[in-house]
Amino acid sequence: MSLDPSTVETPAAVVDRARMESNARRVADYCARHGLSWRPHVKTHKSTRVARIQLQAGARGLTVATPHEAEVMAAVCDDLLLAYPPVGEAKLARIVGLPRSVRLTVALDSLDVLRPLAAAAREAGRTVGVLVEVDVGLRRVGVQGTEAAVRLARAVQDEEGVEYRGVLFYAGHIRTPGPESDAGLAALSRQLGGLREALSAAGCDPEVVSGGTTPTLWRSHEIEGLTEVRAGTCIFNDRDALRVGAADPGDLAYSVLATVVSTAVDGRVAVDAGSKALAKEARGGDGTFGVLLDRPEVEVVALSEEHGMLDLGATAWRPAVGTRVRIVPNHVCVSVNLQDRLLVEGPDGLEAWPLEGRGRLGRPT
Amino acid sequence: MSLDPSTVETPAAVVDRARMESNARRVADYCARHGLSWRPHVKTHKSTRVARIQLQAGARGLTVATPHEAEVMAAVCDDLLLAYPPVGEAKLARIVGLPRSVRLTVALDSLDVLRPLAAAAREAGRTVGVLVEVDVGLRRVGVQGTEAAVRLARAVQDEEGVEYRGVLFYAGHIRTPGPESDAGLAALSRQLGGLREALSAAGCDPEVVSGGTTPTLWRSHEIEGLTEVRAGTCIFNDRDALRVGAADPGDLAYSVLATVVSTAVDGRVAVDAGSKALAKEARGGDGTFGVLLDRPEVEVVALSEEHGMLDLGATAWRPAVGTRVRIVPNHVCVSVNLQDRLLVEGPDGLEAWPLEGRGRLGRPT
Repeated sequence: MSLDPSTVETPAAVVDRARMESNARRVADYCARHGLSWRPHVKTHKSTRVARIQLQAGARGLTVATPHEAEVMAAVCDDLLLAYPPVGEAKLARIVGLPRSVRLTVALDSLDVLRPLAAAAREAGRTVGVLVEVDVGLRRVGVQGTEAAVRLARAVQDEEGVEYRGVLFYAGHIRTPGPESDAGLAALSRQLGGLREALSAAGCDPEVVSGGTTPTLWRSHEIEGLTEVRAGTCIFNDRDALRVGAADPGDLAYSVLATVVSTAVDGRVAVDAGSKALAKEARGGDGTFGVLLDRPEVEVVALSEEHGMLDLGATAWRPAVGTRVRIVPNHVCVSVNLQDRLLVEGPDGLEAWPLEGRGRLGRPT
Repeated sequence: MSLDPSTVETPAAVVDRARMESNARRVADYCARHGLSWRPHVKTHKSTRVARIQLQAGARGLTVATPHEAEVMAAVCDDLLLAYPPVGEAKLARIVGLPRSVRLTVALDSLDVLRPLAAAAREAGRTVGVLVEVDVGLRRVGVQGTEAAVRLARAVQDEEGVEYRGVLFYAGHIRTPGPESDAGLAALSRQLGGLREALSAAGCDPEVVSGGTTPTLWRSHEIEGLTEVRAGTCIFNDRDALRVGAADPGDLAYSVLATVVSTAVDGRVAVDAGSKALAKEARGGDGTFGVLLDRPEVEVVALSEEHGMLDLGATAWRPAVGTRVRIVPNHVCVSVNLQDRLLVEGPDGLEAWPLEGRGRLGRPT
């Protein structure tokens, strides 16, 4: 059943289908042009239907972060990368319990994660691929330095139940554009070059070198030795992607439809999308939380749980109570994670798509 | 079935039942002592079982923000305040469609909200109570000034289908403790005194004067003329409640159970609770996002979607991969909103409680 954007209950997450499909094609084409595999991270959309669009456009497989995302995406893809160390029996059981048809790879950075994973894989009678996660400067996870990476790669080779496939990194500290990023990308290439050389010398030549975020997406070909791009945000884009120059306004496929509920305060209006629809992530550092899709001069300057405050200081526009607006959040992944469903907009109105990958429980436990 | 906190899959939201019940009793007792009604806002917990604990402790009714919260809470309470202007046909239909047994009150600040609500109430053959929302300084919603409040109160009295019950405010700009709050509370009392006088003179004496947030909770009796306290966070408390002096460490009833997944980076460890479990709200302005329940010197200094980074700079503690920790988020309401369920901890382990009020859809539409 098609829904009408002028009457559907707000706040609601709306996706422009044509833009989403065009985003998927553009990334897939870029990767194909540069001989890179695209393995988009589904954390952004958590939807099997969106994943199918990525796969049809040419994605080689999917990246997931949680056992639940893996279980859900196994229904549409038989090549999954868990870019997150599975720790604890509950998670391990779900991971090795994925359908046999799934070629599964896991990224990890320690023997403490490797050994229980290998034991669970052996017990389940399957082989799990492993990428050694290396820290390239974000200081989040990842082995420190080339020597530690080589040591862990050899340990993976020595372990039954797992198969060494290469290395993975997340360069979340490099944000294009600008000279700082030029230097960052050049340093990253040198770092990866050295790593690759050391791994090869030790008999651990990496078949996969997996990296690539949306901010650096269009410069992925500058990262020497990279084989795989995991960028996920690029399917929808967001205000942050605009800010770092990774997307143009016409690439914004996601917005939160909201309704003006109060015009009582001078110079502002309140809408019914708050931090429980947009997420209160102050990216960009200017203390604003979103912007109107069609009026980029109107920003969300304050968020309570169910109220968003639009600042009218830069516009002559004066909306009435009941007016509908579309808000682009700073960070789309955390906004999608707050929604009940996606309303995908095509020529015939809005169609509800489920977000099957939301939450953590596969079934009530 | 009882779950074991040492093996349950993480991240998971854990509630200390004894502390929660003690928090409910303490607030109810404080309100009773000062002749105030407690009408806790359920946005914090979204659980009918938690609401029952509040009602059994002495809450007079419940406050809700969304039609879905109202529908869910109607099952356990017949006196609901919707502290949010319902705009749009979809929301109005759900609001006036609540069971007849529910005594419903709605807060609003304009004729644009009042008139469609009154029309919907008339059509449904019921009477909806109305509180006039006044802005006392937060600049979010609420009529501006005494004259506008009187004008709207009279308009409510003149409208069929609705019944004028008083006024409502949200003093989210006043945060105890300190001299600034003393001045803020004194100014608020003067403001409300003047408002009450003007309303009475116009024949709109307010039966209800509804206010009261968790930060100012224990000083609610200083607000002259206040009849009702809506504070909701106080059922669980959070790091922000600690910071403003509204709670002690022993009052913290909610934490996110997480597992250490990486110790690769010097001076930090990564846990599996990120912004999709804790919410990335930088309250307090120091750029940290949470603190360990049992080690207040260990803070969450960075959050990605599924990674939380604990800073070990102020502790000699060095947890191994697999170690479990409990994290108190900055803002509990938005953390609860990210969970699949609450794991309520009593002497026999963890019991799963549903969060029926999460999301926005009553039924698939």
